[in-house]
Amino acid sequence: MAEEKASKEGQDNVVFVGKKGTMAYVLAVVTQMNQGAKEVVIKARGKAISRAVDVAEIVRHKFITDADIKEIKTSTEEVTAEDGKPLKVSAIEIKLVKK
Amino acid sequence: MAEEKASKEGQDNVVFVGKKGTMAYVLAVVTQMNQGAKEVVIKARGKAISRAVDVAEIVRHKFITDADIKEIKTSTEEVTAEDGKPLKVSAIEIKLVKK
Repeated sequence: MAEEKASKEGQDNVVFVGKKGTMAYVLAVVTQMNQGAKEVVIKARGKAISRAVDVAEIVRHKFITDADIKEIKTSTEEVTAEDGKPLKVSAIEIKLVKK
Repeated sequence: MAEEKASKEGQDNVVFVGKKGTMAYVLAVVTQMNQGAKEVVIKARGKAISRAVDVAEIVRHKFITDADIKEIKTSTEEVTAEDGKPLKVSAIEIKLVKK
């Protein structure tokens, strides 16, 4: 599934949150910031949206306390369901920025 | 559970998203706006966060197309788990405003 891959989508420093455990994505964000990224965008769709918020909250409260949420955007994306029909899912983008 | 109630918390026009079906909360938001509310805040915690984003997206795309998301805030709240221990959960507040 598209949710599973660590997406680049023409944009650096994106962490795509899917079905793995929350800490896997926390580690991905922390690693990118510790390697010098000033900004990391956490993206998720559907039920993974709650996990994306957890990831952002855990990173900024426990690991990188000088990181802050600069912007949160939501949108509706159209994906193809398993039966081939189009399906609308909500999506979120959380932009974390190191001060 | 606290998630279940349609919370006021000293603030009018709040819809607290819990475990009911998404459309129950969509209806609550649409009703408030149709009764004259210019602004409705959709709140959720934990796994209900994804549903809160669905509610906001469905309201503004399908029902009240002149409504827009003005602000999204996330936070970490401490609740008491069933075993009595403190538990941290992520929370979201989505402010929908009618133009």
